[in-house]
Amino acid sequence: MHNYKELQSLFGAKLEEEISKISQRTPRYLYDPVVYTLQMGGKRLRPVLVLMAHELFDEKIENAIPVAMAIEMFHNFTLLHDDIMDNAELRRNHPTIHVKYSSNTAILSGDAMSILSYEYLNRCKCDNFREIFNIFTQTALKICEGQQYDMDFEREDLTTVDDYLNMIGLKTAILLASSLKIGALAANAPKPEADLLYDFGYNLGMAFQLRDDYLDSFGSTSTFGKNIGGDIVSNKKTFLMLTAIERAKGETAKTLKHVMSSGNIKPDDKIKQILSLYDQLEIGRLTNEKMEEYYNKALLCWENLNVPNNKKQNLLLIANKMMNRTS
Amino acid sequence: MHNYKELQSLFGAKLEEEISKISQRTPRYLYDPVVYTLQMGGKRLRPVLVLMAHELFDEKIENAIPVAMAIEMFHNFTLLHDDIMDNAELRRNHPTIHVKYSSNTAILSGDAMSILSYEYLNRCKCDNFREIFNIFTQTALKICEGQQYDMDFEREDLTTVDDYLNMIGLKTAILLASSLKIGALAANAPKPEADLLYDFGYNLGMAFQLRDDYLDSFGSTSTFGKNIGGDIVSNKKTFLMLTAIERAKGETAKTLKHVMSSGNIKPDDKIKQILSLYDQLEIGRLTNEKMEEYYNKALLCWENLNVPNNKKQNLLLIANKMMNRTS
Repeated sequence: MHNYKELQSLFGAKLEEEISKISQRTPRYLYDPVVYTLQMGGKRLRPVLVLMAHELFDEKIENAIPVAMAIEMFHNFTLLHDDIMDNAELRRNHPTIHVKYSSNTAILSGDAMSILSYEYLNRCKCDNFREIFNIFTQTALKICEGQQYDMDFEREDLTTVDDYLNMIGLKTAILLASSLKIGALAANAPKPEADLLYDFGYNLGMAFQLRDDYLDSFGSTSTFGKNIGGDIVSNKKTFLMLTAIERAKGETAKTLKHVMSSGNIKPDDKIKQILSLYDQLEIGRLTNEKMEEYYNKALLCWENLNVPNNKKQNLLLIANKMMNRTS
Repeated sequence: MHNYKELQSLFGAKLEEEISKISQRTPRYLYDPVVYTLQMGGKRLRPVLVLMAHELFDEKIENAIPVAMAIEMFHNFTLLHDDIMDNAELRRNHPTIHVKYSSNTAILSGDAMSILSYEYLNRCKCDNFREIFNIFTQTALKICEGQQYDMDFEREDLTTVDDYLNMIGLKTAILLASSLKIGALAANAPKPEADLLYDFGYNLGMAFQLRDDYLDSFGSTSTFGKNIGGDIVSNKKTFLMLTAIERAKGETAKTLKHVMSSGNIKPDDKIKQILSLYDQLEIGRLTNEKMEEYYNKALLCWENLNVPNNKKQNLLLIANKMMNRTS
């Protein structure tokens, strides 16, 4: 069995080979941005999950490389197009494609990446290809749906915590879930095990996103790697903010609304005031509880997985790593 | 055997059913633009070609509906994203999606359409699905490449007639070619016949695009349906303009360059002067000859097609209809 680092470096080598082939395709302005995007790096979490799930049932992990590549390509495509839609200027400390090249280039190269992901998928030699194709395509559509809900949320006044959880499920958790399920199916895993892996990935993805929300308000810059309070300053509707809106009553609700809608408040003051309201409303504790709820569901799936412990140990290590736990 | 009109109405009915299903999907802002785009109409040429090619080898054309739907969906996706990139405000007399909704909506709904085309593709029950999948995906990539070349051309000073022919091949002709080939393969057609159909569609597509270029300069508004001279006014690098640039020498070359780069010339005068240069350089005749060359190649493929004449007659009628001929 391979651990995360080993799978990451194994996949990384294969990816480099593919990048070098893509860089020879023409026209340059279509494929250069694809290469640039793939070379930006990243943890390669999704393809590693594909390979890891595959290895639980079949040690010939090279058979799962095409689907791992397809999923990494698709994931990077969504980042590329999301960056246009979100007007993001940086991604992993590099200028985004629409900034470095142009919006048109970012649109078209993204389109090509989406199609390339299907080119890789079609290299998969497994018996149950049609089922894998179906899960891949349904997952891809759901990610688009998640992105649309995310954009809708920024326009709509009312958004519930449940709507938010549904949105991050579509936008983030489902791809982790499907990566595991597809990896397992490519190894002809029994359906119940493939489904447990899906649920494990889904709940882990939800816990991971809630952790990200939590750290944006309560983390320290050194562990979080981004500036703290970004979500608060931009009035982003996260689990924290929506829970606060749902719980705040009377004067607290008024203050919350006032701070959120005040145009001339300094960012640092806004963060301070919102954090103080979060304290009053116990938002930190509630977020942690929700995160734990999902994480525990993931653990339960992991326990029920009918695979020897020594084989499935690496999956637990990934889960802990994602949640930044030491055990 | 069904003729164009019959296949168009048969496909139209199936498309309506699918549109009605898509309109029930959520979120609305993701799927409404998909429905709007599909309902804009159009000749449904590509799906009709799929069905017609299928019927040459197998009369159960309902088996080819999923691939016909996939191709029509993909074609409409490319129109949607091209309209953003070209800043087009109207499509078939309706406001384009990025005008009616927003650029972000147009990007994301287009992404969903591209994925939906694969959802339809995966409903195809044919034995040689993997081959069809491969042709579909390679065609999709080539269309992106064609669009990129098209955008590159507008920036680059030098573009040859050959580059142009390559570009319209990728952007337009290949999808017609693949529609026929995929339709035939879905009916288990012998490979040589599927390849002849591909070549027939490719050459017909090339002839059709050259005819479009020709009519933009030499047509009459009543038969062309758009304003004449649009390409000339916008200095568009068409077969006509590039041939003129390649052939013009001495004073004629100077005049051509001057008229093209002059900023304060009235559109009508520009059209008049360029048309006069086209006359001198025999651009009309040369374009017609090139068009005939492709059309005759298409006819040769049609003749060589090993299918009884009464079956393949409808294909010839489509070709004539596209070239606006009466026989």
